[in-house]
This record gives sequence, C-alpha cells and structure tokens, in this order.
Amino acid sequence: MSEHEGGRGRPPFPTAGHRQSLRAPALRPGDVVGVVAPAGPVDREALGRGLRLLEEWGLRPVPGDSVHASRGYLAGPDAVRAADVNRFLRDPGVKAVVAARGGYGTLRILGSLDLAVLRRQPKILAGFSDLTALLLAAWEEVGLVTFHGPMLEVRDPSGMPAYNREGLRRALFGEAFPGEIPWPDAPDAPQPVTIRPGVARGRLVGGNLEVFTRLVGTPWHPRTAGAILVLEDVDEAPYRVDRMLVHLRLAGLLDRVAGVVFGDSPSCMTAPAGRPSLTLLEVLEDHLAPLGVPVLYGFPCGHSRYRATLPIGAMAELDAGAGRLRVLEPATAPAGA
Amino acid sequence: MSEHEGGRGRPPFPTAGHRQSLRAPALRPGDVVGVVAPAGPVDREALGRGLRLLEEWGLRPVPGDSVHASRGYLAGPDAVRAADVNRFLRDPGVKAVVAARGGYGTLRILGSLDLAVLRRQPKILAGFSDLTALLLAAWEEVGLVTFHGPMLEVRDPSGMPAYNREGLRRALFGEAFPGEIPWPDAPDAPQPVTIRPGVARGRLVGGNLEVFTRLVGTPWHPRTAGAILVLEDVDEAPYRVDRMLVHLRLAGLLDRVAGVVFGDSPSCMTAPAGRPSLTLLEVLEDHLAPLGVPVLYGFPCGHSRYRATLPIGAMAELDAGAGRLRVLEPATAPAGA
Repeated sequence: MSEHEGGRGRPPFPTAGHRQSLRAPALRPGDVVGVVAPAGPVDREALGRGLRLLEEWGLRPVPGDSVHASRGYLAGPDAVRAADVNRFLRDPGVKAVVAARGGYGTLRILGSLDLAVLRRQPKILAGFSDLTALLLAAWEEVGLVTFHGPMLEVRDPSGMPAYNREGLRRALFGEAFPGEIPWPDAPDAPQPVTIRPGVARGRLVGGNLEVFTRLVGTPWHPRTAGAILVLEDVDEAPYRVDRMLVHLRLAGLLDRVAGVVFGDSPSCMTAPAGRPSLTLLEVLEDHLAPLGVPVLYGFPCGHSRYRATLPIGAMAELDAGAGRLRVLEPATAPAGA
Repeated sequence: MSEHEGGRGRPPFPTAGHRQSLRAPALRPGDVVGVVAPAGPVDREALGRGLRLLEEWGLRPVPGDSVHASRGYLAGPDAVRAADVNRFLRDPGVKAVVAARGGYGTLRILGSLDLAVLRRQPKILAGFSDLTALLLAAWEEVGLVTFHGPMLEVRDPSGMPAYNREGLRRALFGEAFPGEIPWPDAPDAPQPVTIRPGVARGRLVGGNLEVFTRLVGTPWHPRTAGAILVLEDVDEAPYRVDRMLVHLRLAGLLDRVAGVVFGDSPSCMTAPAGRPSLTLLEVLEDHLAPLGVPVLYGFPCGHSRYRATLPIGAMAELDAGAGRLRVLEPATAPAGA
C-alpha cells in the first residue's frame, strides 16, 4: 500500500501511515475469545447476551476474572483487570480479546499491559469508548489494526441491534474489509452532516475524544498526520468538546490530519441547563472547518443506538460530501494465519 | 535563591525551579488595572462589585471590550477576547491584567496572546480556574510569577468574603509574600486532610486540574519536576479526577513533584446518581500517596467559598502533616520598579 496518503506536501515527521501495520488473523468457528473488563464493572445478565451472541457465531468466549469484580467505578482492582488482559494477550490459544464494557479505567492499567507480545502473536482486540486507550496504545506501540465497535455487555433485553451485530461479526470473521461501512437502514438512523466536503484518504485513528486526548503527551501520544481522525463522545457539553478539540489543536494533532469523521454524539448537543452555549455543530465548525480537509459529522460510530465497527489503523477513504466512509484494505490476516 | 529545591536526586530534565523567575512590580494606589474576560461572558452587575473593590483600594480598573461581549459560553469572539488581553499586556500604562471571570475559553486564544512582551515589561496577571491556561503559559513562556485567586465577577450581593479580598489585596500590593497562606478563621472553613505527611519545598505550579491537563503536550507543557503541584477542580466526578491524574502520571508530570496540594473541591466528591464510585479521597490516595511526597487535600484554593491567592511560580514550603503552606519569597518586585 502507498504511504502518506492524505498528506498535503511532505510531512516533517512520520505520518500515521508511516509504518507497516500488523493484522491479526480473522476468527473462525471454534476460536477462543478472551472477554475482559479493563474499565467499569459489568452487569452479568447483560454480558450473558453478548456471550450468547459469540456462541451463536460458533466462538468460545472465556470471561476473565474482572468481568465479575468491582471496586467503585472499576471492574475490580487494577491488578485484576491488568492480569486478565495480559493473560489473554499472552495465551496463544486465545484468538481475540474483546471488552465487555467501557466506562472508565483502561488508562489506569495501560502502563501494565504486555502489548509487546502482540508483535509476534497479533490477535484481534475489540472495544469501544474507554477502550480507545487500549486500541490506540496497541496501534502506537506495535502497529496492530484493532476494532472500535460494539461491546459484549448488551443492556437492551431485545439484544444488540442487527446493524451493530452484523458489523462486528463481519469484522471479526474478516468479511467486512475492504469495503464500505454502511449507514443503518432504519428510520432512527443518524443523518450525515457535512461540515466540509471533499474526499480524503488516510488511516483511521481515534475513538472516544475524551480518552483520545488523555493519550496526548504520554508514551502512546497519537500520531495523526495523514490520518482520518475518527472521534465521538458522550455526555460532554459543547464547551467540553470545544476544550478537547482545542487541546488537540494546541498539541499539533490537528495540523496534518487528512480528514475528520465525528461520530453521532447526540448527548453532546446539550449545554448545562440555563447556560448560554455554542451548539456542537458550531464547535466543530469553529475548530475543524478551518483545517481545510473533509469533515463529516454524524457517522454511526458514537454512543447512540447504531455503532459501526471501525478498523483503527486501516487505510480508508472519506467522502464527506456524500457521507461515505470506505475501508480500502483488509483489517485482518487470513483466519488461522 | 537555590535551585532544584524539592528534587530527589538529580533530575534528568530541567525542574520547575530551573530558571530565574520574573516578578511584576507590586501595585500602588493610582495604578491602572486592565480587566479582561478571556473565557465566559460576564454579568455586569456582579462585575460592578469587583470594580468597586479595586476602586476602594485606590486602583483604576479599565474594563476591556470582552467584559461586555458574549458568544455562547464565550465573552465574545476569540479575536475580541485576545485583543483585550494583548492591548493591556502591551500598554505600559497598565500595571496589572485581572480576569473578570473564568468558565471556558482562555485555551482558545492562548496561541494568539503576546506573552513575550512580559519579558521586558512584566506585569501582574491574576485569575482563577480557566485562567490557569494564561497563568501557566506566562510561567512556562517567560517565567513570570502570576496569581491564582479570586476574580472580579462577584456574584454574592454581600460581596467577596473578607478572606478572599484580603488575600488578593495583599498579593497585588506586594504585602502577602513571603509569608504563610493562612486558613480562613471561620466555622465553614475547609479542613485540612493529610493524604501523606511530610515537608517539601518547591515552586507552586498548577491551578485548575482540568485546564492544567489541557496544556499537556502543548507548547506550554507544564514542567513539574521539583514543584509543589497545586490542583483543584469543580463539578468533576471522582472518576474524572481519576482520569486526569492518570493523564498527568502517564505524561510523566507526577514523577518528580516535590509535593501536592489539592484544593478544597467539594463538588468533585459526588458521583453520578446511582453509579458506584470511589470517593475523591480514595482517588487521591490511589494516585498521589504512592508518589512518596507530602500530599495535602482541602486547602482553601478551590471552587468553594474561600479562595486564597496563590503565587504561581514562587518558591513555597508545604507541611502536609500540619496543613501549612508558606511562600518563601516575594512574588512581586517593589512597586514602581
């Protein structure tokens, strides 16, 4: 694959597309999946729905100790949560590590995770929101393509929406990419809002905005030059989204992005009661439109009903005018590789 | 003054005490004070109380255009807010720049501020909370000692509490430092909580925690080695304080601090309704006690009724067991210097 896609002129430092990426083997029926809770405590009944889903797909989910543990807003002590992840990362019999839920806590254990083991034994990592820390760290540290998408704690008794389920299944089994990430075909699907039209190519880098900003200045400082930045957030008032985008700008992380996809984030549209505010779209226009690159709001990859599975680190093409996002390459190696 | 106070062994990079600091001349009656609103929109009546206070002290407050402007949660467009600050920074007839209020917005204009002019013309900068961005940037960029303390929008019709008023007045007029920063002598004063006892010396570096973390990885990346870190926050649930402290830890900013003062932050003690949580004190114990340095919680420098004026950049001594914070040197040059 070519390098530096989406770059404007020659970048003064390595772009997000500068290295050979690692791909984990796609799953096949019979594979063991380690289920972890590096962040918040997990509801057992809701997790049962996600485990049954994996079983329906012919997979063999193995929950770690952390999915039954709790300490305040954490799924047990840091040592328990970290040991779970490390055990599954190191076990050659485990083919994927999938998170039960987010919340908060992955950052606390990030420095204790044995991500280096993924270099010789790449395996699928999947999670959402708080798990952005794990996914981005794996991308920055070893170049592994990971998956930002639905998790296994399924609170809705009617199960995971078909859109989310099929996106995750196809990604895990290596069927989704290359290919377009479709919008949900549903009356309550989010609508694309073009902040700035245009077409861009670059690697998908990002996840939850708040967690993403917490990697700035750390050993996993995200490299965004040449990348299509994918962001979303939940329950953050517009002024907070503003502050986070300004942080990224001041840290130079918006300077050379190829494009931006901001996921559907309805809960970020509301200001604290009675206080004057800019709207979320005004915030995005203030900070992203001046970048001069394609910017799309509303993609179904946020904290709302529809959640696409995004291959973080994979090359993609964004058409912000048409509201289309297409992954240009496989995100997994052949199953059993 | 001696260098590297509070350091443990030889630091691998410059400590917060590595440079000659700049001190602005203390104020004297008749001096002009520029009043700015780099963040949120200002209530005119409440600001009137603060302006009258300055006049009672014999000062001549001059409000900038931004104190009458508004755009959503901002005191007018970025250009207006930045022009106000720059005009007062550059005008040799203006002896201090004091903020009307915080909120959010200083970070948006930080890159547009002419802080370099302070090198040849140091002047008092004072503000709180969101203004941490301005104060820390002035400290990092030119080494100016600034003041984190009460602001001029006084919402309480009965005026600014005497503790806050006297602390600010004495700091501006060069009467407070060197000297101990007292606790309020009042029944509703916060109580000191010793997270880890001990005595430490270092420069005071910090302010609002959230804003402080937004400088990580930027051109104003805070240098904290050898420093007494002063932090506080408002309306941040314990898990958010946790995340911010982990961010600082992952970015290496807790590695070599000499001590930590966490200001009284009662609104950060409450978790979202119905959700399990660690307490704020558990969060501080998790992340600050293992540093092996003195740590004090509850100092009257947070978003509660009593707000001390802290000279950011000045050498201080913390006795975390006794709950005492003493500034060891002047924070201003002689008036008229």
